[in-house]
Amino acid sequence: MAKKKVRRKKKVVRKKTSSARSRRSSSESGHEGAAKRLDQFAKRVATAADQGEDPSLKIPTRALSNVAFNKRSRIIEMGDATQTRSFFNLGQAKKFMQTTLVGAGCRELLRQEKTTSIRDLFYHCKHTIEGTKENTFDEQTESDVIIEDLEVAIESLREELGLFAEPKGALVGPMVIVDKGDTIDLTKMGSGGYAVPSIVEHDVIEIKKCTADFVVLIEKGAVWRRFNEDRFWKRHNCMIVHGGGQPPRGVRRLLWRMHHEHGLPVFVLVDNDPWGYYIYSVVKQGSISLAFESQRMAVPDAKFIGMSSFDAEKFDIPDAVTIRVNDRDVRRAKEIRGYPWFQKREWQREIDRMLKLGVKLELEALSSKDFSFITETYLPRKLDEQDWLD
Amino acid sequence: MAKKKVRRKKKVVRKKTSSARSRRSSSESGHEGAAKRLDQFAKRVATAADQGEDPSLKIPTRALSNVAFNKRSRIIEMGDATQTRSFFNLGQAKKFMQTTLVGAGCRELLRQEKTTSIRDLFYHCKHTIEGTKENTFDEQTESDVIIEDLEVAIESLREELGLFAEPKGALVGPMVIVDKGDTIDLTKMGSGGYAVPSIVEHDVIEIKKCTADFVVLIEKGAVWRRFNEDRFWKRHNCMIVHGGGQPPRGVRRLLWRMHHEHGLPVFVLVDNDPWGYYIYSVVKQGSISLAFESQRMAVPDAKFIGMSSFDAEKFDIPDAVTIRVNDRDVRRAKEIRGYPWFQKREWQREIDRMLKLGVKLELEALSSKDFSFITETYLPRKLDEQDWLD
Repeated sequence: MAKKKVRRKKKVVRKKTSSARSRRSSSESGHEGAAKRLDQFAKRVATAADQGEDPSLKIPTRALSNVAFNKRSRIIEMGDATQTRSFFNLGQAKKFMQTTLVGAGCRELLRQEKTTSIRDLFYHCKHTIEGTKENTFDEQTESDVIIEDLEVAIESLREELGLFAEPKGALVGPMVIVDKGDTIDLTKMGSGGYAVPSIVEHDVIEIKKCTADFVVLIEKGAVWRRFNEDRFWKRHNCMIVHGGGQPPRGVRRLLWRMHHEHGLPVFVLVDNDPWGYYIYSVVKQGSISLAFESQRMAVPDAKFIGMSSFDAEKFDIPDAVTIRVNDRDVRRAKEIRGYPWFQKREWQREIDRMLKLGVKLELEALSSKDFSFITETYLPRKLDEQDWLD
Repeated sequence: MAKKKVRRKKKVVRKKTSSARSRRSSSESGHEGAAKRLDQFAKRVATAADQGEDPSLKIPTRALSNVAFNKRSRIIEMGDATQTRSFFNLGQAKKFMQTTLVGAGCRELLRQEKTTSIRDLFYHCKHTIEGTKENTFDEQTESDVIIEDLEVAIESLREELGLFAEPKGALVGPMVIVDKGDTIDLTKMGSGGYAVPSIVEHDVIEIKKCTADFVVLIEKGAVWRRFNEDRFWKRHNCMIVHGGGQPPRGVRRLLWRMHHEHGLPVFVLVDNDPWGYYIYSVVKQGSISLAFESQRMAVPDAKFIGMSSFDAEKFDIPDAVTIRVNDRDVRRAKEIRGYPWFQKREWQREIDRMLKLGVKLELEALSSKDFSFITETYLPRKLDEQDWLD
């Protein structure tokens, strides 16, 4: 009977969203579009040089001063401030050189139709400048910030430039994808699941069929495994994904695609601690440090399904498995309580409750009841009662 | 032509090994065997109690004093020393209680035919003892050591007890497995690959077909991705696997199975630094801290294919991409040079060379030549010239 209820509810929560698509049309996305924009970016430099002008690059400012929470779109966005990087400015010449090198490296990567890591690109661009003892780059941190500059300057995600991060996370459920020509049925992935790659753009991953009703992002791989082993995704007709802690870009981008392209409601299931709140916050609104990605990563409609500070009481969790919060937890919880996007009454109540009880709770604590309490009782009941925060 | 050479060589390196099988017969392995041995373990306690004797548990000693490198089997092994844990000994009673609790928790898990994380089991076993303020366990570290005790006491890997670690690592290549009833063709895994689960025992993962000639363990996920994207596994008819740094137990155990059950030679490709040497060392000989697992995890025939301290010169790698070693590197390199299993002349030469040059080298450094230098030139040449260390 409980099952019936969940099914009914699911029809309610499922809706096709058409909003919040990228500003760019799809023909401009992917590797091809990025290559085109890189060429335009380079052409401006070349043209200036040809005309005897000081070649310069215009880079949107990536600083807290140029970041704001957009209440309408409900994501953290960058403002319009830009900075100029000139070749004939002694203080800017090195960064100018580095920017063109990274740009050229990415262009070469795209020409070869390959992808690589940001560490690899660093090595690709690193060399000693002829006739000097000066290196183009000394540390990877130098090329990493240039990559971020380039992403905002040409409005491309690094994934579109062919750059990936260390892959992390796994996915299963009723969805069929085509990954580099291989058709993969995500209901037939055994115990390991599909390892979510870092690059999940349209030219790499095609979502061929998706009959799931919703998707649950689970904080930890070990808990995800419990859900997979208990075939939660089958019983509730949903996708389950984890990102091994703070989900990596590939997982966030895939969540975005499942939500925006296939209308799947996104539920986030994390530990009941400030770090869990923050994982939810980044999935939902994006992060301050990488605000320029929000538009293509954030899912403002994502729901926080647990664990809530009210769950211990609601589910009769023994005190022995709660953990006392420490000073760092308290400080972080208060910081998060102050974020503009956590100002709803329910959220203030949620965080206040944690501070008042003075304890946090891990997902695994539910195993004190029974190994499958989380998949058989806890989450079904939360879904059934629509007991989540927005 | 280079390809021809590699193919020929592969016939040489491929051999079916029948040695180093587990002492236990296969009927005793897996969850079923572990359950049986747990029952026997518990019965001894119950029998003692019934007969009015002091119930006690005999646990093999897990200390450096009871660990040695076995030159014949070429793995790090535990000795025969044991310690007794008695119920009626004030200093041992708590540990006795904890051991029986963890044993009961694992038995319950096996009865339910489920698997879970060691954190989950900790929570499962944690409670306040009735009528007292005493918890059975306060920290997970307490239950973790008990799990290790139990593994050695009943000669079962934790995976056989149903316990898993955070999964990490991916695998692709010409092999078909059956994972929890799903038949998975590892040549059709797209860009993400098959996420190697933590538990890869026979009752979970069956290797149905394996036509690969060898397997390459690659240190980093990002470099593995380069190999997958360039379809190295197809061109060289091999398996490629990574473990995201120090490979987790699932990856090590799967390497063991590919090697011992399917005769695949194992090549290890790591950064040229002491941490790379150590990854190789653990894959090959096992680790000191978990010596009791060596027999079922270590692959003494594994080859170190790179990166070697001689590679920078051999492959004309520019100085700009080498990294100066720091004090910690030097200390670690000297430690490793002293290990009994690194006493071969070639290994001493290898480590001395690193110390003499005073630089280390990451796999990604090869990208300074070309993005695919590592897959198209470096590794094929090393394989072709049988340029590896044993």
